[in-house]
Parts: sequence; structure tokens; C-alpha cells
Amino acid sequence: MATILKGKDVVDAMKEKMIADVEALKAKGVEPTLAIVRVGERGDDISYEKGAMTRCKGIGVAVRNFVLPTDASQDELLKAIDQINNDKGIHGCLLFRPLPKHINENYVRNRLAPEKDVDGITDLSMAGTYSCTELGFPPCTPTACMEILDHFGIDLTGKKVAIVGRSLVVGKPAAIMALQKNGTVTVCHTKTKDMASVVREADVVIACAGKAGVVGEGFFKPGQVVIDVGINFDEQGNMKGDVDFAAAEPVVAAITPVPGGVGTVTTSVLVKHVIEAAKRTI
Amino acid sequence: MATILKGKDVVDAMKEKMIADVEALKAKGVEPTLAIVRVGERGDDISYEKGAMTRCKGIGVAVRNFVLPTDASQDELLKAIDQINNDKGIHGCLLFRPLPKHINENYVRNRLAPEKDVDGITDLSMAGTYSCTELGFPPCTPTACMEILDHFGIDLTGKKVAIVGRSLVVGKPAAIMALQKNGTVTVCHTKTKDMASVVREADVVIACAGKAGVVGEGFFKPGQVVIDVGINFDEQGNMKGDVDFAAAEPVVAAITPVPGGVGTVTTSVLVKHVIEAAKRTI
Repeated sequence: MATILKGKDVVDAMKEKMIADVEALKAKGVEPTLAIVRVGERGDDISYEKGAMTRCKGIGVAVRNFVLPTDASQDELLKAIDQINNDKGIHGCLLFRPLPKHINENYVRNRLAPEKDVDGITDLSMAGTYSCTELGFPPCTPTACMEILDHFGIDLTGKKVAIVGRSLVVGKPAAIMALQKNGTVTVCHTKTKDMASVVREADVVIACAGKAGVVGEGFFKPGQVVIDVGINFDEQGNMKGDVDFAAAEPVVAAITPVPGGVGTVTTSVLVKHVIEAAKRTI
Repeated sequence: MATILKGKDVVDAMKEKMIADVEALKAKGVEPTLAIVRVGERGDDISYEKGAMTRCKGIGVAVRNFVLPTDASQDELLKAIDQINNDKGIHGCLLFRPLPKHINENYVRNRLAPEKDVDGITDLSMAGTYSCTELGFPPCTPTACMEILDHFGIDLTGKKVAIVGRSLVVGKPAAIMALQKNGTVTVCHTKTKDMASVVREADVVIACAGKAGVVGEGFFKPGQVVIDVGINFDEQGNMKGDVDFAAAEPVVAAITPVPGGVGTVTTSVLVKHVIEAAKRTI
């Protein structure tokens, strides 16, 4: 019987700390504010936006919404980003992607000032993540993994950490972060031979391959901690992680559930980054 | 008896290819040109500068030297960098570091245009290295490791690669590059437990810890390929790698010597980057 590492526990602890931080900032005349930029009316974006707004409200972080029509021109979007960059009352910006195809996403994302890039989408934020400096912000999902490990007192020093997945949004930054936390980090991917044997050696597993159940039977050992980043949907529309929970749970020491694990914490990390961005302006 | 992976073989092959590239560029009216910026008269810098100039000359790449006195102001140095950025006849720039203490190195290095950053010192080059895009250039030393592997036909796909060291200049970029080459990459460092057992599992070892002989007895297995990045000097002034050569050589399949290995190739990579930078301007 593994311990279930519930995202809610992490969210609650983060919330308490963040409320105090926001109060301290407001006492200094700074109201942490997030700009949310959405182009079009995609359901996923709107649903994430609602969740982020609720989370912000509960913590006392203000939100300013910038909604552009699906056929907005690139110039209109750049104008909105410039407005955000120039507004000292806005500390962070979340820009929903993918952007409509007529917009050069690579160009647009780098228009955002890295100090307001709380979702880690700019090249300079990537440099900051890679070099472990306070240049921009790292992406929220791998940071959520680290928040979970920290919250439950799981120190990576000297531990073997297996990252399953090498995406720029999760796998690579998670590897850099785990390395910074003194883990001995191994990155596995589709070309890895006998992945089960590699992952089975690890003390901590971060599954972020983006494929349901890819970390399954034969990958686990007693004592292991498993962080499941996956958000996949089966034919019945049920949310499934990258980890075969039923195979892992009887063997490992601790595991994050899906849903209710990493995904839950991601929004809190976004809010934390807004507060951190506001702190950095003082 | 291990095969000795001589840097000179790689340098010779790269040279031949580069001479052809330079000729093709010159036929299009582009003369690849490297700016070398040196502040002061440090022996190491001057010695590296001489080597780089000789290597450039042999390949047909022009060099323009910018030498500033040790007490040059930061503004003077920035002015030189601006001049290089604005000169369309200069394609790459090598800036010797560390800079004198009165100069803010972190600020100055980011003044260089990333498209001319052939030594990978800017934040944007780091983002390019991390994201494996053509944004700036990766640092020369880890690239030299990959050139050696490529030259000797050592494919990393599906292989276990152990990187010993996690510096921003070698270990981290080498890990990212090995990952891009489809290796299953493990990064070891001072906090790694039982490093010997981790490294012994690897098919390819890249030793870049910066400490003589740190990869030694018990770290090796038959069939292994060992790339030794270390440049250390013993009490007698002899150059020593990070690998205990005498312990490795009887066991492994192939190993780079020190001196005459990675270090030899690094300058060729610098020149290759200048040529690549010139190509990108067309």
C-alpha cells in the first residue's frame, strides 16, 4: 500500500504561505497581478483560465484578462503583450498556446518580458531554467513536481532519479531541476533500451512521456517514489496518467494520483511565480 | 588494449571539410571572420589565442584581434563588442574570460549578438543549447566531445551515457547533446552515491568533473568508450585528464588521450562555428 501524494495537500500548504506573502506585498503597496492572454475561445483554455482565476482569487492575486478574437492579427497580439510588458501593475503573464496558425508563435512568445514570464515560455526563461538562475521562470509543471517532493520531504540528494520523457516543457526542465537538487539523474525516452530495468533502479521516478500507462509492470521497486505528470484520456473519457497506477501502487512507497496529483499543483505554481515576480520588482 | 581516439584524426577530418566550406563561402563573397577579444595579457589567453589564430589561418578563416588593456573600462569593452555586433564582416566572436574584476561579466557577455556567439557564452546561446535550436551556439568543449563520437562512428542511440560533472560549460550541455543523440543519459556529480557502479553501467562515459583521475579503478567495463574532457596539472606540471588512463586503458574499448584528445578538437569546433555563423548570414 503506497502513500498517495495528494496534490491538494501541497496546494493547501502553498496557499497558506502565499496568502501571507501577498499580504506582506500589499502592505508594501504591491498587489501581485497576473495577466491572462487568450486568443479565441478554445474550451481547454477557458477551463484552465477559470481554474487559474479561482486559484488567484483565493490567494489575493489580481487577474487582468486580455481576450482577443481567433482572427486577431499578430500585431494586435504583440500590442497586448507590449501593454503588459510596460504596465508596472502587472507582474506576470500567462499566454495560452498553441496560438492560431496565422501567428508566429516563436516570435510572439519572445516578445514577453522574461521577468513577467511566469509560465516559462521565453528563450530567456529557458536559459534561466537551464542555468538555474533567476532569469525568467521555469515552466510550471516540472516545478510542481519539485513542490510535491519538497512538501512531502523527499530529498533527492544522492538519490537515483529517472525522468521518463525529454520534452522541453517537462522532461528536460525536470531533469535540470532534479540535478540541481543533487539527484543522480537519468533521462529515458522512446529510444531507451529496456526502460523497465533503468526505471526500476531509480529511487524517484518522474513520468512525463505523455502516453498512458507507459511506466507500468516491471518498472517499480519497493521504496520508490513515483511522480506521474501524465494527463491522458482513455476511450471512455477517463483521465489516466503515464503510470499504470494499479501496477505501481502495490509495490512502491509513494505515488501521485491522476487526477489530483501534479496537475492540481501546477496552477498554484503559476500563482507562486506571479508573487515571486512581484517580489522581484521591489 | 583500447583504441586511442586521437583528437588529431578528428581535427584533420574537420579541417578538410572546413576548407571546402570556406572556399564555397568565399566564392559567394563571404570571408568567414572571427573577432578575438582579449582584456589584458594573461598567459593562458595569449596561448589559446595563438592556437586559435593558427587553426583559423590553416582553414582560411580571417581573424581580427581586439586587445584592451587590463584596466580597460566596462564601457570600452562594450564599445568593442558593439563594434563587432554591427560589423557585417565579422561572423563570430571569442571573448576571453574571466574578465577583470571591475567588469560585470554577466552583463558584458550578454551584449554579444547571439548569432556571433560562437563560444556559447550568452544566455540566448544557452537557451539554444538547451532547446537544441539554432539560437546562438553551444559551448565548444561539449561539442568537441560529440565531434569525436561522430568522427569515430560511435552512435549514442539507445546507449547508456554517463556524464561525470554537471558544469554549465561542459557537463550540462554534454548531457543535453547526448540526449539529443538519443542516448539514455545519466548525470553524475559529487553528490552521486557509488559513482563507480553508475559509470560502470554506461556504454559511453564523458568525464568532465575537472578533477584529475576522479574516474578511475572500478569505473570501467569492457566495450566502453571513454571521452576525457579533463585538463588538470599535477605537481610536476604534467597534464592529466579526469580519467585514470592507466586504469581505463586495459579494460575499455576506446579512450581519448590527455593531452591530444578533446582539447585538441575544441579549437576546431570554434572555427567550425565561425563558418556556420557565416553560412547563416547568407
